[in-house]
Amino acid sequence: MADVDVVVVGAGLAGLSAARELVAAGKSVRVLEARDRVAGRNHGGFLSNGVPVELGGQWVGPTQDVVLALIEELGLETFPTYDTGDSITFLDGRAIRYSDVTFGLPPETLAEVGALWEKIETLAATIPPSAPWQAENAAELDRQTLDAWLAANTSDTVALRFFRHLVPALFSAESPELSLLHFLGYVRSGTNFATLLSTTGGAQERRVVGGAHRISERLAEDLGDRVRLGEVVRTIKQDADGVTVLYEDAAAGAAGSVTADRVVVAIPATLAGRIRYLPPLPASRDGLTQQIPAGSVIKVQVGYPTPFWREDGLNGFVLSVDDAFNLVLDNSPPDGSCGVLVGFLEGAHARAAAELSADQRRELIVTTLVKYFGPRAAEPFDILEQDWMAEEFTRGCYGGRLGAGVWTQYGKALSTPAGRIHWAGAETAQEWSGYMDGAIRSGRRAATEILDAR
Amino acid sequence: MADVDVVVVGAGLAGLSAARELVAAGKSVRVLEARDRVAGRNHGGFLSNGVPVELGGQWVGPTQDVVLALIEELGLETFPTYDTGDSITFLDGRAIRYSDVTFGLPPETLAEVGALWEKIETLAATIPPSAPWQAENAAELDRQTLDAWLAANTSDTVALRFFRHLVPALFSAESPELSLLHFLGYVRSGTNFATLLSTTGGAQERRVVGGAHRISERLAEDLGDRVRLGEVVRTIKQDADGVTVLYEDAAAGAAGSVTADRVVVAIPATLAGRIRYLPPLPASRDGLTQQIPAGSVIKVQVGYPTPFWREDGLNGFVLSVDDAFNLVLDNSPPDGSCGVLVGFLEGAHARAAAELSADQRRELIVTTLVKYFGPRAAEPFDILEQDWMAEEFTRGCYGGRLGAGVWTQYGKALSTPAGRIHWAGAETAQEWSGYMDGAIRSGRRAATEILDAR
Repeated sequence: MADVDVVVVGAGLAGLSAARELVAAGKSVRVLEARDRVAGRNHGGFLSNGVPVELGGQWVGPTQDVVLALIEELGLETFPTYDTGDSITFLDGRAIRYSDVTFGLPPETLAEVGALWEKIETLAATIPPSAPWQAENAAELDRQTLDAWLAANTSDTVALRFFRHLVPALFSAESPELSLLHFLGYVRSGTNFATLLSTTGGAQERRVVGGAHRISERLAEDLGDRVRLGEVVRTIKQDADGVTVLYEDAAAGAAGSVTADRVVVAIPATLAGRIRYLPPLPASRDGLTQQIPAGSVIKVQVGYPTPFWREDGLNGFVLSVDDAFNLVLDNSPPDGSCGVLVGFLEGAHARAAAELSADQRRELIVTTLVKYFGPRAAEPFDILEQDWMAEEFTRGCYGGRLGAGVWTQYGKALSTPAGRIHWAGAETAQEWSGYMDGAIRSGRRAATEILDAR
Repeated sequence: MADVDVVVVGAGLAGLSAARELVAAGKSVRVLEARDRVAGRNHGGFLSNGVPVELGGQWVGPTQDVVLALIEELGLETFPTYDTGDSITFLDGRAIRYSDVTFGLPPETLAEVGALWEKIETLAATIPPSAPWQAENAAELDRQTLDAWLAANTSDTVALRFFRHLVPALFSAESPELSLLHFLGYVRSGTNFATLLSTTGGAQERRVVGGAHRISERLAEDLGDRVRLGEVVRTIKQDADGVTVLYEDAAAGAAGSVTADRVVVAIPATLAGRIRYLPPLPASRDGLTQQIPAGSVIKVQVGYPTPFWREDGLNGFVLSVDDAFNLVLDNSPPDGSCGVLVGFLEGAHARAAAELSADQRRELIVTTLVKYFGPRAAEPFDILEQDWMAEEFTRGCYGGRLGAGVWTQYGKALSTPAGRIHWAGAETAQEWSGYMDGAIRSGRRAATEILDAR
């Protein structure tokens, strides 16, 4: 007799969602989590004044029906991201305020950006979310990097630079690092490009009161002692009778094992590739995990006594083509009792900033915020950084990306079970791939695979 | 007191070369090898008539001074690859015999191929082998895939298809899967493009009597019981006092550990990334191992009673733009006592062929050889396949490749030590990166780092 019906590896939203479905169907489940906390790429922190901030994924929005319903089901609440007033774009040394959907771009650039944008929406709509590698022209779309496609589709150097800056905002990676097919499939899975990039009406529309990690915490509460923290899974054996999952504690000391009928591996694919599988996995799956690297991002929360930028008629949103700390939003608590700006160092900027000392990074951040919002930005009461690249059990955010040629050669292995091993995680989702909504969907899909298999 | 001065992980040419240097300098060394054999990506097999054939890397040639000297030092011998007679190119349904350096291409295609070739040689000569990311225009060269560069530099569709077929012959990967900078750096490290692609006068000029794996076997004999087989390294801990290397047997059963002052990790980077490091490695190194996938190749040895193609004035070399089993050479023993053809399924062809049954693959191979060499090719007495993708402790050949953007963002981490951990392996070599010669150089370089550090 196996110890449990199903072992779930990873207590992020995907793993916890799989476990919840399986338990609801009467299965016995053990969730093994390497960290001393649940929630994976969601993580909560507190500024020194006690205000909670999100150190990882944080926004939800329209068409993310699954996560929105789950939030409600768990008795949590959302509130709108502050979005009143002007945004600012920094471009070639100029600060451009705007209050529409133009990003403040000069008319000639705007026309070119609009044309590219339209091409992206049109192409993305042709990608089947369930199988991007089966898109019409998949081979041609996958052969190109996003960067090459952008360069081939505009001769406007400003429009090109603008798009090259948008890419890290979505992927924490640079445009040469992903295939056009990956980009289009991602856009398609998140409804469309406009939805991905919008606050109101889009993927950054709402936040969870107390932080998005509370979704995972509530799920884990319901699962009780089925969830075991600090257990690092190292080996998964399977045979005709079932699976044996071998783990060790975080210090690589005490070891343990649990047997089950099936296992759901609900961690990023690049980390899933570090587990040893006996017998070894098919080459198609192993090859995929060799080349689905995570993005590079340092997320920064900066606390001020008040959201002073609001007094200047600003909504806190800044996109700068000129700066390393190039994307900022208002992340103040719902009551506005203090001011919080959240900003990102992404892609090449993140890798460069990770080489700086903490003091140097702080200076970079504060100096940039003073440039964006004036001298009142010079005196934050707290700065909280989260470098996701340095996290042993994440090793990069926002998620895994596929470079040129990978989707068409290896894409099928992303979610195809390997015998008794099922794969979950935000990247394996067909809808809202890479987002919290997709993570939940992926866990439920893995649970369904197991329930259907018996 | 540590158990030994240095632990070496991996008993391929790199690891064994590091161990040899360290032992010669008076250090105590332990080599931990996961397999039940040494030699890594070299591996020897025998056809059913007892003739030895090379299932992995096999050729050496001019400017590979280090491996050639080592072969001599170890008392081994080389012999020339059979290269007398005509080669054949298959292109658009035609078989073209030739005996020069033209690949039999029609004049107009040849002129275009020559022009591209010249551009490659010129660009490659500008890459500093010690640091490709410091090349002039490194950012531009790394931003492009090799495929995009090829397409942008010729409008001749035949020349383009020809080059796209040459790429898997060198990398077991398709042209979109590597950055132009990676390609150029690889060419530079192997002297030049002509050298890489040539038999006589180039990288395929000579073979080792008995097989290239004998180099590793001789090295291992000299190291004696310092080399331990069947020990799979899973965790490396380091602190101010030294390192502890934790391993388990191949069945993930019995565990052991060894302490040392330093460790050389001499396995492909993608596998090195599967070891757990405590404390965790810097993000720059971890990010590299997330995206240096191995190529896809199935190597096939086909034995015949005689090298009958020689009677037809053929040297056995075939390059086909039309076929999956698209690269074949004469691999008969030095005395010609039987005929052996060695051929390759590479890149996308390898991935597709791996999905076939053994019988289907055999039929594909034999049918193709009959097309190339006539009906006498229909009756091989033996076929030996080696699918390097399926090998748990290699997971692809010929080596790790870097896609667009990776060299400039992560290249430095390829060989920069992480504290007491030093990196070796053919891919880390400055000269003959990816070749046996480079593997030996890389092991010696790691040994020198350690000797210099003390």
